Amino acid sequence: MSDPTKDGGTRRAFLTGAAGIAGAVGVAGSATALDRQETGPAVPFFGPHQAGIATPMQPHCYFAAFDLTTDKKEEIAALLRAWTEASAKLARGQAIGDLDRDPAAPPVDSGEARDLSPARLTLTFGFGASLFTKDGVDRYGLAKHRPEALVDLPRFVGDQLVPERTGGDLSVQACGDDPQAVFHAVRQLGRLADGVAKLRWVQSGFVSGYGPKTTPRNLMGFKDGTITVPISDPSAMERFVWVGDEGGGWMRGGAYVVARPIRIALEHWDRMKLGFQEQTMGRHKTSGAPIGGKSEFEPLDLAANDTDGNPLIAENAHARLAAPETNDGAQVLRRSYSYDNGVSFVAERWPPWRQGMEIDAGLLFVCYQRDPRTGFIKIFDRMSKFDMMNQFVTHIGGGLFACPGGVSNGRYIGQGLFEAA
Amino acid sequence: MSDPTKDGGTRRAFLTGAAGIAGAVGVAGSATALDRQETGPAVPFFGPHQAGIATPMQPHCYFAAFDLTTDKKEEIAALLRAWTEASAKLARGQAIGDLDRDPAAPPVDSGEARDLSPARLTLTFGFGASLFTKDGVDRYGLAKHRPEALVDLPRFVGDQLVPERTGGDLSVQACGDDPQAVFHAVRQLGRLADGVAKLRWVQSGFVSGYGPKTTPRNLMGFKDGTITVPISDPSAMERFVWVGDEGGGWMRGGAYVVARPIRIALEHWDRMKLGFQEQTMGRHKTSGAPIGGKSEFEPLDLAANDTDGNPLIAENAHARLAAPETNDGAQVLRRSYSYDNGVSFVAERWPPWRQGMEIDAGLLFVCYQRDPRTGFIKIFDRMSKFDMMNQFVTHIGGGLFACPGGVSNGRYIGQGLFEAA
Repeated sequence: MSDPTKDGGTRRAFLTGAAGIAGAVGVAGSATALDRQETGPAVPFFGPHQAGIATPMQPHCYFAAFDLTTDKKEEIAALLRAWTEASAKLARGQAIGDLDRDPAAPPVDSGEARDLSPARLTLTFGFGASLFTKDGVDRYGLAKHRPEALVDLPRFVGDQLVPERTGGDLSVQACGDDPQAVFHAVRQLGRLADGVAKLRWVQSGFVSGYGPKTTPRNLMGFKDGTITVPISDPSAMERFVWVGDEGGGWMRGGAYVVARPIRIALEHWDRMKLGFQEQTMGRHKTSGAPIGGKSEFEPLDLAANDTDGNPLIAENAHARLAAPETNDGAQVLRRSYSYDNGVSFVAERWPPWRQGMEIDAGLLFVCYQRDPRTGFIKIFDRMSKFDMMNQFVTHIGGGLFACPGGVSNGRYIGQGLFEAA
Repeated sequence: MSDPTKDGGTRRAFLTGAAGIAGAVGVAGSATALDRQETGPAVPFFGPHQAGIATPMQPHCYFAAFDLTTDKKEEIAALLRAWTEASAKLARGQAIGDLDRDPAAPPVDSGEARDLSPARLTLTFGFGASLFTKDGVDRYGLAKHRPEALVDLPRFVGDQLVPERTGGDLSVQACGDDPQAVFHAVRQLGRLADGVAKLRWVQSGFVSGYGPKTTPRNLMGFKDGTITVPISDPSAMERFVWVGDEGGGWMRGGAYVVARPIRIALEHWDRMKLGFQEQTMGRHKTSGAPIGGKSEFEPLDLAANDTDGNPLIAENAHARLAAPETNDGAQVLRRSYSYDNGVSFVAERWPPWRQGMEIDAGLLFVCYQRDPRTGFIKIFDRMSKFDMMNQFVTHIGGGLFACPGGVSNGRYIGQGLFEAA
């Protein structure tokens, strides 16, 4: 059994791929092209920031975390270069290399996206804390470059993190218009990583109805992401999302991502009265307006009381606890997807103590921020203790990853870190 | 904790829902409408055949099987009526009932599809053999109505069916343009079934690039479904797919569906040489043409030899074994989706004997036919023994379900069976 990535195949594949693109450019309509139709929208991979952060949300997501298996820093750098070059092609709607040139070799690209458009594919890479220090060991001589902001996430109240679905040395968020395109992208990255890193956990997700003035609904049936950093506001993005000089050169223009699959007890939530659901959220279900309000984007009136003198938006309502007003102004860029992992057996922890198959679905919570200590951790620490919604949701995995700044063509993601080390 | 389906809520919900629709029609643009935007394409639920069989494939699928928990035939009939009425609404892009009218009651519809289009949603229902006879018991007095064609699927060579992912008394195939719409639909059906049936297994799926003249690619990177019954050819559909008088009145115009999740060992497949992949399939990867041919839809030349005198299309090639020419003309309507269930731990059964996380993905094989004995069973019995592709694929669950004929508005799916019994 031959292995294309074992015998220098990775590098060779990229050389072949590069030649293939040149060939395709030279021979319009040639059947030898290694690539998909270059129709449909494409999001450039190269730029000052990684794509997939300030990019309007695409309907499909595939988040993957990898464990490094190599002990050589140089192999990680080579992998990141390979991933960068592959990502640039994938974002253009191309295969990462030879699809059908050599019958005597495995195709470099598995081919299932061959006929698809670029599908606005974005690939956003991140580094976990364990890349720098794992079990107290400086594995690759990178420990001194670990950003202060790349903390170990604290254990939050209620966390039920499954180790196999938590952490990871490297991460990638693949987003696009097409589920097959995002799956294909992560699959190719996994193949390129063979012998250097292996998949640790993955989670696919979907979101429907996202638009410039439209907030999508999550599986609780509520709008999700009403209060977020506006991607169209550069100064807000600079303030809350993009890392500045504080992060070391390689993190400038980058961001920290928290990605956590949150299982929702849909069967229980669905049995709650509408009024209770709305009190839990602090918002009306249909309109998304704050309790007592009319429209989704009006400000939360946190001081308002009802006729009994109780807060209109409950003290432990989700919207109150998440609001910048109650978090010293903290904000994160939310980019969450719903997930659905089928059904699984659950033994309930509360009456009526049922046991049986329940829908294993929820929210792949994803947020970007300039510093998680003043972003997700700041906000979620209090929510994890008091949010009424916690009755229905359980964080089951995920992690925090430092996403380096973007790069220009010819450089690779994270190159500044590996050159500095 | 209140349960909307326990206290007559199901029937009440439908009455409420019906009133709501009337109200919405009367008050254009009313904010009280219980429903989603009625924009975008809709596929009618009612008709001589169930939708979702001869319907052009939509990009998303959610297949679900239910176990009945009731011992009352009347409750099954009531569930099917509720499912029918709900399905008609869902196909129009409406909620199945009250979303926000009564704060003191749980919303009848969970609401996550509120702002979405009908998304060409189809819901196709089926009956498993165990509805008629389970462990030798005639559970509901329906045994005498079990169609001869609704056999117990034989155990095929290589089957590794997981009991929890196999069988079921009732099935539904939800397909549509939007993953949230298909998830939402099955979720509502599950809620309506509470106390009567429960989810047994589900499998989501996706397909990209399907079109009138375009065959989509599966995760092996090959076109999947080149040879199938053309949905645009009524006489072929009558011959191969639609049940005629032989099935009893309630199956006339129906079909039998075989749905089987087939895990593909992607990591191994990807290491195979292109030439070997193509020999395995009996087709070229890029074009989909038979080995030695030029275009996807040209006939298989099963008699052709290569210069060494060996068959051009190998004796154990997938395309040869699946071809009507080698199966006494048998054909099925293929309607398969790719699936992706993340990663899971695999201990390999062959060199290099690796253990680790592998992508848990493959094909949700779905086919419709007039009689499975002369359709799937006829074709797959030989394939299960000889197909070269079996090295890379494992059937891990699924089932055979009898999908009754379509019904007109006012009647419910399967009504003929329950009236006859």
